[in-house]
Amino acid sequence: MKDIQISIREDLKQKPDQDHLEFGQHFTDHMFLFDYNSEQGWHDPRIVPYGPIVLEPAAMVLHYGQAVFEGMKAFNTNNGNVLLFRPQKNMERLNQSNRRLEIPEIDEEFILHAIQTLINVDKEWIPSGKGTSLYIRPFIIATEPCLGVRAAHNYQLLVILSPVGAYYSEGLEPVKINVESSYSRAVRGGLGTAKAAGNYAASIKAQTEAKEAGYSQVLWLDALERKYVEEVGSMNIFFKINGTVITPELNGSILAGVTRDSIIELLTNWGITVEERRISMDEIYQAHKDHTLEEVFGTGTAAVISPVGELFWDDRQIIINDGCIGELSQQLYDTITGIQTGMVPDTLQWTVQV
Amino acid sequence: MKDIQISIREDLKQKPDQDHLEFGQHFTDHMFLFDYNSEQGWHDPRIVPYGPIVLEPAAMVLHYGQAVFEGMKAFNTNNGNVLLFRPQKNMERLNQSNRRLEIPEIDEEFILHAIQTLINVDKEWIPSGKGTSLYIRPFIIATEPCLGVRAAHNYQLLVILSPVGAYYSEGLEPVKINVESSYSRAVRGGLGTAKAAGNYAASIKAQTEAKEAGYSQVLWLDALERKYVEEVGSMNIFFKINGTVITPELNGSILAGVTRDSIIELLTNWGITVEERRISMDEIYQAHKDHTLEEVFGTGTAAVISPVGELFWDDRQIIINDGCIGELSQQLYDTITGIQTGMVPDTLQWTVQV
Ligand SMILES: Cc1ncc(COP(=O)(O)O)c(C=O)c1O
Ligand SMILES: Cc1ncc(COP(=O)(O)O)c(C=O)c1O
Repeated sequence: MKDIQISIREDLKQKPDQDHLEFGQHFTDHMFLFDYNSEQGWHDPRIVPYGPIVLEPAAMVLHYGQAVFEGMKAFNTNNGNVLLFRPQKNMERLNQSNRRLEIPEIDEEFILHAIQTLINVDKEWIPSGKGTSLYIRPFIIATEPCLGVRAAHNYQLLVILSPVGAYYSEGLEPVKINVESSYSRAVRGGLGTAKAAGNYAASIKAQTEAKEAGYSQVLWLDALERKYVEEVGSMNIFFKINGTVITPELNGSILAGVTRDSIIELLTNWGITVEERRISMDEIYQAHKDHTLEEVFGTGTAAVISPVGELFWDDRQIIINDGCIGELSQQLYDTITGIQTGMVPDTLQWTVQV
Repeated sequence: MKDIQISIREDLKQKPDQDHLEFGQHFTDHMFLFDYNSEQGWHDPRIVPYGPIVLEPAAMVLHYGQAVFEGMKAFNTNNGNVLLFRPQKNMERLNQSNRRLEIPEIDEEFILHAIQTLINVDKEWIPSGKGTSLYIRPFIIATEPCLGVRAAHNYQLLVILSPVGAYYSEGLEPVKINVESSYSRAVRGGLGTAKAAGNYAASIKAQTEAKEAGYSQVLWLDALERKYVEEVGSMNIFFKINGTVITPELNGSILAGVTRDSIIELLTNWGITVEERRISMDEIYQAHKDHTLEEVFGTGTAAVISPVGELFWDDRQIIINDGCIGELSQQLYDTITGIQTGMVPDTLQWTVQV
């Protein structure tokens, strides 16, 4: 493996108040950088003081959005260990995103090693309050200065770290979600399966309009027929109907969430039937009317489980489980956060010690 | 109007060889910068030496692709004037893109004034060979350092200039285009109508695959049914069938090209029927078989007119006009480039003198 050059900063930054950590606002003392050009491939891996980067104004990322990213977390356990949750999955997905956007692939093992090294350098930054963690953001940007539309020849991979507070300060809280019927996020043949920067730009306006109407998130429908459920802003979605758990299949326009995959495995192990298939809003509405819609929850790295208390769909209000947290949602949340923080035995070997 | 601060660089750069200008590779001595924050709005307009910019690694443009741009050209005329072609249209479209991506709107008149000021500062850079021009790239990026997905609070608008060579060194040259049937660029409700960075990232892989198969561009079909023609990589598309000119309507997923609009106006003035409507590949193939498919051409700022000599669609080769340039294509090209360079009277008042 290549050696990682490490330059430690002299004046460490003041750490933010652990009890009031807003998501993605504070960054640690260091970051990881790694460059790519056609001659040398990926080269010069280094940990340097966190600070501004210098880009040509013609850098292709700024014009054509050739950029991909990942999101994962490191947790402090009670007995002083630091755990990552299935980080290999994120490295695999980073390479899937790379392939879709024609960004040169990375050595997954090496980048994971680099991330672990960086976390070790900044380990004092990992918060230890309940529900807190260190958010890890690896990303790759096209740096070549050129206005032609094509894959760039030069890239930079960066990893930055951000201490984040508990997603739920007072235990799980059900959210209200607007089912989006005019805007689209992705379509088959597009970038939906990749964690590509442009997908998120496409979601901003719908999110704002949903917020203004009192909903915390948007549930995307398929762009083709606007009938089938896809995913939430940055979460996959699950429905418990009559004892069976249903989640949209990986149809070519949604992101394959690591949490989604973990939930499916857990439920299957628990003997609960999970169906990965197309599911329409009509079917969900019918289940609601039949009183068989038992639970709805989103899944993602940020919240782990986000119980849904209400879906608003074309003037129809679907209240789920009287707006309360479902039993299964709570159980999944407790199990996964328990594994992540070393409180629940990790029988599936999902965690990696830093 | 706000005053533009101008700092002229001391050591002017060496200008590139005017006879070998590759697109978007060389940049002039200066650039225009303009900042936005919630308190001050757009402020501090300035022309500074062209050079690297400094961004926080967490700048939202690098993660969520909140970025829009424009592309236009300045031309040297024979009698020493510098002309822009319908620049107000680009400013309007920039604001349309802004609204779609929730970027704060700009004062169109002021930015046009800033562009003109910048061109004046760097006017020695406008090449004067036949077919050459100064390409103008205004763009806006989200600079706020934050990992939350939402509209940023801080932005920078930049304008950079690049001298570009003749698109056709030896007169118009017909291109071969692959009709794309697996990848999608945009879909209704998405960002297709905006000149948003992410749209271009979505096109890279299809473009590469087309190039590898010997085609210079991709013709996108609608993502819903994959039947109807949308547009080419960075051009709109026109078909002349049996004397009538047909171009896809602005259906909510294609870009409203300035060249497209100009062509429609010219043709209408010339008494040629233009239909803006849905047009399927089936219809085009049928016209080809009936020998009524007379001409096909792409339109855009880069090439003005790009005659299409061949379309390749699901194993079917559609040769147009024996692979030669159509009469109307040539006439449109001559008229528009003539107006742009002051050789043809500008009866429609399309040009703006710098
Ligand atoms: C669009 C989208 N869907 C789903 C997810 C959930 O994925 P994961 O569970 O890997 O965090 C995310 C967040 O990463 C996302 O951005
Ligand atoms: C996607 C797309 N379509 C069409 C066009 C043509 O537009 P215009 O004639 O304004 O250059 C462009 C280029 O600007 C483009 O990027």
